[in-house]
Amino acid sequence: MDNIRIVMVRTYSAGNIGAASRAMKNMGLHQLMLVSPREFPSEEATKMATRGAEDILQGARVVDSLYSAVHDCELVIACTARPRSFDLPVLSPEQAAQRLYSTANNRKMKSEKGSPSVALVFGPERAGLQNDDIKLAHYRVTIPANPENPSLNLASAVQILSYELSKHHMFHEGTVSDDNLLQVPNLSSSTNIRSSNIELPSIAKRESFYETLEQVLKDTGVAHKDDPRYLMQKMRRILDRAEPDDSELNLLRGALAIIQRRLSEKE
Amino acid sequence: MDNIRIVMVRTYSAGNIGAASRAMKNMGLHQLMLVSPREFPSEEATKMATRGAEDILQGARVVDSLYSAVHDCELVIACTARPRSFDLPVLSPEQAAQRLYSTANNRKMKSEKGSPSVALVFGPERAGLQNDDIKLAHYRVTIPANPENPSLNLASAVQILSYELSKHHMFHEGTVSDDNLLQVPNLSSSTNIRSSNIELPSIAKRESFYETLEQVLKDTGVAHKDDPRYLMQKMRRILDRAEPDDSELNLLRGALAIIQRRLSEKE
Repeated sequence: MDNIRIVMVRTYSAGNIGAASRAMKNMGLHQLMLVSPREFPSEEATKMATRGAEDILQGARVVDSLYSAVHDCELVIACTARPRSFDLPVLSPEQAAQRLYSTANNRKMKSEKGSPSVALVFGPERAGLQNDDIKLAHYRVTIPANPENPSLNLASAVQILSYELSKHHMFHEGTVSDDNLLQVPNLSSSTNIRSSNIELPSIAKRESFYETLEQVLKDTGVAHKDDPRYLMQKMRRILDRAEPDDSELNLLRGALAIIQRRLSEKE
Repeated sequence: MDNIRIVMVRTYSAGNIGAASRAMKNMGLHQLMLVSPREFPSEEATKMATRGAEDILQGARVVDSLYSAVHDCELVIACTARPRSFDLPVLSPEQAAQRLYSTANNRKMKSEKGSPSVALVFGPERAGLQNDDIKLAHYRVTIPANPENPSLNLASAVQILSYELSKHHMFHEGTVSDDNLLQVPNLSSSTNIRSSNIELPSIAKRESFYETLEQVLKDTGVAHKDDPRYLMQKMRRILDRAEPDDSELNLLRGALAIIQRRLSEKE
């Protein structure tokens, strides 16, 4: 659970930051990162973080962009209610928890670094996440809700997803039996074989690959120089679905670099 | 869900009543009953019940004992963190949701009365439920939490149990399809996340794409002219995993054809 980072983006209400800290603490999560919060630190946040969550608030790191918050992560999942024009594959809360947990623990076992390697991202209260934020994520997770009133309180959304993560953790630790996990099917499904051993590239590496790809597509005229967004969105959807591991992404980067060199040699 | 009653006993904070109403509304629950709340109605409660939950607050019934709140119920489950001297069989949140939901719907089918027939009971913030309250319940439900900080915010506890009820409801109603997958076991395969009605390209088309790709990789020197097999095998593994649909493959073919033309123009 130490490697799972909760990221709150441009949070308006300090009370929500405090309430989210308490929810995290209750569920055994520790790492909180705040992207440009309106007000922090704040008395209201401290008040809502009672009953032991003060250390989470004190340890919270404040950064000024989502990229800074997640650039070293192997897996980023954005919590968003509405379908966006920039769309991502959708996961249920259980699936999101399962992916985050297994990726974080994968990394832990290899003990390459002590730093957290997966992130769960929550947008601002009213507006939600912008497309530029969402494109940094691999998946989005949507909490199933009443279609007439789908808008959950921000801290409640953090609570529900932290709870699903906690269930996975307890199940794997053996503190909760199968009976307590009626809803989580087949955790050790054989189809997991690939995802349980691979090393995924960092967000920074993936973004740098996409930048090179975009450059090549613009240079060759495949993409419109002025607006390559639509094409890049399509490309990202295809490749993100393939979930290239670190060595595969190296291969693609290498191939792209050679193609780029050939094209420029001939200018 | 209409037959499931949320009962809040001697709630101290009016804000928690409001936040609980919003949580219920988001999760499709409607019936709120308050046993001797410290302050109700209250501005603070109304403020926290924004985004459409005002009707739940307005419809909330206030009574002066837990007995009055649950005397007509067929099933009563008390939410409590601590084991009590007056002990009851313990259920997990999923199990509690399953029992409440199935009992409520049983009754509904028999259509004996219109009134709710099951209740989920939450105690006061600090002290929790007293033994006299707990003995009116059939079971108790405990939300698994960090043993060092097990004390959830009251509205968060209502949120989590309402969420588990909502999952049962959506599953039974079929509003959550396989595509949204609350219950689908194959959690990790990304191809599962796509809808099942995509049109996949023919094998011929796919092979023709790979031939073009191989040609480009040979022409640029990315692949050895004599033996591109290893590289092509890697490329196929990545792309086959993405399972591009017909229109996506057309996009990739188009991009590749343009790159190929640019390279040959400059020979």
